[in-house]
Amino acid sequence: MGQRIKIKALLESEQTDISVVVKGWVRTFRNNQFIALNDGSTNSNLQVVVDFENTDPALLKRLTTGAAISVSGLLVASLGKGQKVEVKAKEIEILGDSDPEKYPLQPKKHSLEFLREIAHLRFRTSTFGAIFRVRNSLAFAVHQFFQDRGFIYLHTPIITASDAEGAGETFHVTTIDLLNPPYKSDVFDIALTNYQDKLSKHINDQDFSFLLNEVEKKLLQINSNIIFEIFNKNKVRFFDLISADESQLRELVRNHNLFSEVEPLIKRLYLKISKSNFFIRKESNDTDEQSASSGATKKRKITNYLPEWFHEKIVSNMKSNPTLTRVHLYKQYPFLSLSFYNIKWVIEKLKTSPSRYVDYSKDFFDKATNLTVSGQLEGELGAMALSDIYTFGPTFRAENSNTTRHLAEFWMIEPEMAFYDLDDNMDLAEALLKYVIKYALDKNPEDIEFLTQRLQDEEKQKPQQDRSEMSLTEKLQFCLDNNFERLTYTEAIDILKESTPNKKKKFQYPIEGWGTDLQSEHERYLVEKHFKKPVILTDYPKQIKAFYMRQNETDANGHETVRAMDILFPGIGEIVGGSQREERLDKLLQRMREMGIPEKELEWYLDTRRYGTCPHAGFGLGFERLVQFVTGMGNIRDVIPFPRFPKNAEF
Amino acid sequence: MGQRIKIKALLESEQTDISVVVKGWVRTFRNNQFIALNDGSTNSNLQVVVDFENTDPALLKRLTTGAAISVSGLLVASLGKGQKVEVKAKEIEILGDSDPEKYPLQPKKHSLEFLREIAHLRFRTSTFGAIFRVRNSLAFAVHQFFQDRGFIYLHTPIITASDAEGAGETFHVTTIDLLNPPYKSDVFDIALTNYQDKLSKHINDQDFSFLLNEVEKKLLQINSNIIFEIFNKNKVRFFDLISADESQLRELVRNHNLFSEVEPLIKRLYLKISKSNFFIRKESNDTDEQSASSGATKKRKITNYLPEWFHEKIVSNMKSNPTLTRVHLYKQYPFLSLSFYNIKWVIEKLKTSPSRYVDYSKDFFDKATNLTVSGQLEGELGAMALSDIYTFGPTFRAENSNTTRHLAEFWMIEPEMAFYDLDDNMDLAEALLKYVIKYALDKNPEDIEFLTQRLQDEEKQKPQQDRSEMSLTEKLQFCLDNNFERLTYTEAIDILKESTPNKKKKFQYPIEGWGTDLQSEHERYLVEKHFKKPVILTDYPKQIKAFYMRQNETDANGHETVRAMDILFPGIGEIVGGSQREERLDKLLQRMREMGIPEKELEWYLDTRRYGTCPHAGFGLGFERLVQFVTGMGNIRDVIPFPRFPKNAEF
Repeated sequence: MGQRIKIKALLESEQTDISVVVKGWVRTFRNNQFIALNDGSTNSNLQVVVDFENTDPALLKRLTTGAAISVSGLLVASLGKGQKVEVKAKEIEILGDSDPEKYPLQPKKHSLEFLREIAHLRFRTSTFGAIFRVRNSLAFAVHQFFQDRGFIYLHTPIITASDAEGAGETFHVTTIDLLNPPYKSDVFDIALTNYQDKLSKHINDQDFSFLLNEVEKKLLQINSNIIFEIFNKNKVRFFDLISADESQLRELVRNHNLFSEVEPLIKRLYLKISKSNFFIRKESNDTDEQSASSGATKKRKITNYLPEWFHEKIVSNMKSNPTLTRVHLYKQYPFLSLSFYNIKWVIEKLKTSPSRYVDYSKDFFDKATNLTVSGQLEGELGAMALSDIYTFGPTFRAENSNTTRHLAEFWMIEPEMAFYDLDDNMDLAEALLKYVIKYALDKNPEDIEFLTQRLQDEEKQKPQQDRSEMSLTEKLQFCLDNNFERLTYTEAIDILKESTPNKKKKFQYPIEGWGTDLQSEHERYLVEKHFKKPVILTDYPKQIKAFYMRQNETDANGHETVRAMDILFPGIGEIVGGSQREERLDKLLQRMREMGIPEKELEWYLDTRRYGTCPHAGFGLGFERLVQFVTGMGNIRDVIPFPRFPKNAEF
Repeated sequence: MGQRIKIKALLESEQTDISVVVKGWVRTFRNNQFIALNDGSTNSNLQVVVDFENTDPALLKRLTTGAAISVSGLLVASLGKGQKVEVKAKEIEILGDSDPEKYPLQPKKHSLEFLREIAHLRFRTSTFGAIFRVRNSLAFAVHQFFQDRGFIYLHTPIITASDAEGAGETFHVTTIDLLNPPYKSDVFDIALTNYQDKLSKHINDQDFSFLLNEVEKKLLQINSNIIFEIFNKNKVRFFDLISADESQLRELVRNHNLFSEVEPLIKRLYLKISKSNFFIRKESNDTDEQSASSGATKKRKITNYLPEWFHEKIVSNMKSNPTLTRVHLYKQYPFLSLSFYNIKWVIEKLKTSPSRYVDYSKDFFDKATNLTVSGQLEGELGAMALSDIYTFGPTFRAENSNTTRHLAEFWMIEPEMAFYDLDDNMDLAEALLKYVIKYALDKNPEDIEFLTQRLQDEEKQKPQQDRSEMSLTEKLQFCLDNNFERLTYTEAIDILKESTPNKKKKFQYPIEGWGTDLQSEHERYLVEKHFKKPVILTDYPKQIKAFYMRQNETDANGHETVRAMDILFPGIGEIVGGSQREERLDKLLQRMREMGIPEKELEWYLDTRRYGTCPHAGFGLGFERLVQFVTGMGNIRDVIPFPRFPKNAEF
């Protein structure tokens, strides 16, 4: 039949009255005469005109929505509206039929929810064709941008043995047979037998440091699912501890100066719990829990971090139990089912609880491994030799988040640059975002026009006040035309504190002072109401950011901040998170110790600070969030071909 | 200090006598005067000339290998040999020291093995700088090639619920706590109690179909680690069965017509075992195993698929055991430890063996999931709407292969094209390979020159006859200048059969006839000795290829082949594997049934053949093999930043 030409090329061709061969899928066939043919190369359909009077009626009947056909004919100027050219068919071959009684996609509007269920076919709709062509352009634009600047594309590992960042819950990767996991011998019983006597003495002395030093290190080593809370009135401090990560605990045990190591570990593990949607509780003064007023204080303090019902339970237990020994134990799943306040009882329970220890030497990699949550640390290794690198690969979070903004599997772009400070970093991120948005606008005008129209139709369903002020195209153009607003976290807090919604108590989380993390409502206020453009927030409190961020000098108000930067986009929220990295070995080590990051596991990372360290910076860009922004799609599950989220790994 | 310029740009600059700022790492510092500075942007070092007489001796002392420095100075024409320009330093700042007593990388030759152990630092060597710059160029060239042709880059899922391709052992992805996996109740005991009586009767009748129909479906449902072998003399057939995949087995049980489903499943599972380096055994005539001669026949038949020692064990057992009831049961790990030949004994054993059933509804995705072995099937879904797509992402094999050619985690490129036949497919693959090789040659001449020299030095260590006839650059150029040799599998077998090594019995696996898979030695003979260029083999026997490949008409010799194509490269072996896909629903279904691929699990895949099917094709290109070829590196672990292989997930 001759060489096939793609519809995009054909529609852009200046020539007419030439013979062409086109292949594609029938979108519609109307009046027994006009086929709208699409081959995925463009959003536009090609009109194929059928000489129905001279065509076998049996063939006409097979020209149904979804059928694959091959057409040879003449490309001619079109007389009809809506297209410049059309093809007068000479010969039509049906390559694959599509039974209209069964084909799930009909030429009508389907809901996004329905299409999500048939994600294997949704590529065939105009909406998803447009989305995935735009996604393609954005992905390539990312590469083009970095290649033009001499960056090296680095494939950081997907399977990793460390969860050093503590960025959230991870997926285990294993070849262990779940029906019969290999276990090591029961270390717990041995530990307990040896220390039972010593333990009782110390319990009576209320010296819990012993518990940590001698017995707990054994317990920790072997119990992966237990949260410890240790209250100690004298020391005005309490500990909570999840021994979630076997390797960290082994590290802990190996370390001689155990007690000093425990405190930072606890904080770090806290952070980890909070991110995994369990609960968090910060260090606080352990005032007399019997008094109602201090109970109230405690309550307010804790409220930010604990679900109300959970806190109620604790406080009421505290009040009603005068023999409280200040040791609490929870099973993680569900963590409330085992809340105990008597240490002897706890110890008894522990003796009967499973205390096995998985023997990972039987696993494929000889150790526990998981799916990466970020390639940053490995990326830094590359940057400290190649100057500028970027990653672009899948990352994973096993968080039970059923939202329109989270996926269990998503793609991330993480550049790392030697000799960059935070300003360079922000400049690069802003340039990248503008470049890729412009690239998509230039490359996919029809797709974005179509998606703009789609969004407009969708917005019409909303009440007037909820509709966007700008169309999708306008929003994208606006991003290109304006500098992103840059300000510090401290400045942002001042703005938010003085803001109308805060004063009128419209925020769900009122801004009370410096130090807390910003909620989505705060970010949206800054971006959508106050500045009305993309915003870069910098210099966040050290307490709420990762260990590897460069520490600023403590300011006049005693605030400790790090050289972090988050880019906030309208409708999306955080699209980029980055920082200048802490290149000073002593500062980095100090922070790691404070946060309980095990040094031994990160020796390789620390080596970059030991040998030829230099100022450097980097950031992470969530690719699906970017695609959401450029396509205007509200649900992140609609911008990745086959989304993975809790209870869903279809196709 | 002014704007930094990268060394690559500086060395290419035409200007001299201008002030510049350069930053990078000291490679060497000789005569207290000449710094060789590298910043990763190029293989070449910049010579920085230090005015040592007017420089603080303390600073000079810190100019050690690996130190990070910032230099401002004058770019001047160089008087020395080896460089056109150099920088006369005005000011040198030490950004990060590198203690020469401790820094593992010294200015001398390190072994690749040693560098693999410090993979976090090996980027800083000339060899690995070159490798990863070339890898970067190849990766980008892949994107450029496909983008130029209007292909859509599609991100297929990494976590999948199906192992439909059966491409080998997979990694489980789970959030299940290995210390305490959730189990369903014990179905096995119930099954056995109910069927014990019936079972004995049937065993006496030698009617094993009952076993499959009634009891085994229960066993299968619950035992994930058992290999069944069922011999049935009357039916002249035996079955082996691994119930490795819970969902397939559930499917099996759900199916009413159980027995007819079992046979193909067995074949498929066989294939799976063979690929995972366990063992394989094909359907064979179950002749009288008591006779020595038939034992010998069996032996020869099996030898290709089983390790010799394993086969010996089976045959000798068969011979020595006259009460053989022809049911064999092995535990998969290690599979030999439980080989039984008495069905009653087996049933007893089964009763006491663990028969729990993991409750995957407690897992993150509500089902068992694993890491993808290929994005092809999902890629086809995209192609059947967007015409031309490609993937470029990580894939995984949990195979215990400690070779220089295998990784547990590697990157693959998988294009899928609607309306392509096998010739189009081969043309595209050949064009792609030539394009990316040319791109690297054009973009990284210094790196490839360096790697060519490196390889030449390495080859000098080898005996004369083992040395390559061509240098690396020559080999790459040769690939560009010559068409790949295309021939069928059948033609290749004829060549191999008549070849000198075959006649002189030099092949470890002699070529006896049509139908067996080619070994690496055969592929190397064809590529390196016979044709002396890249070879594309097509039309392989249907039996040794995957279910989705398009079936050819049976030829005059009764040979059944499929439209497969493998591209073989010198020194690398298979670098591309692809095929025209079977687009005919009936043929595809028939083949799936023959091979025991569960239809229900692949309904979504079959939908592409139900609605608007069309001829299409695709292939997979192993990215690391490509990088190996272009860099001349012998070990695949040296061409990916952080290799994953058995017992290794460092960094």
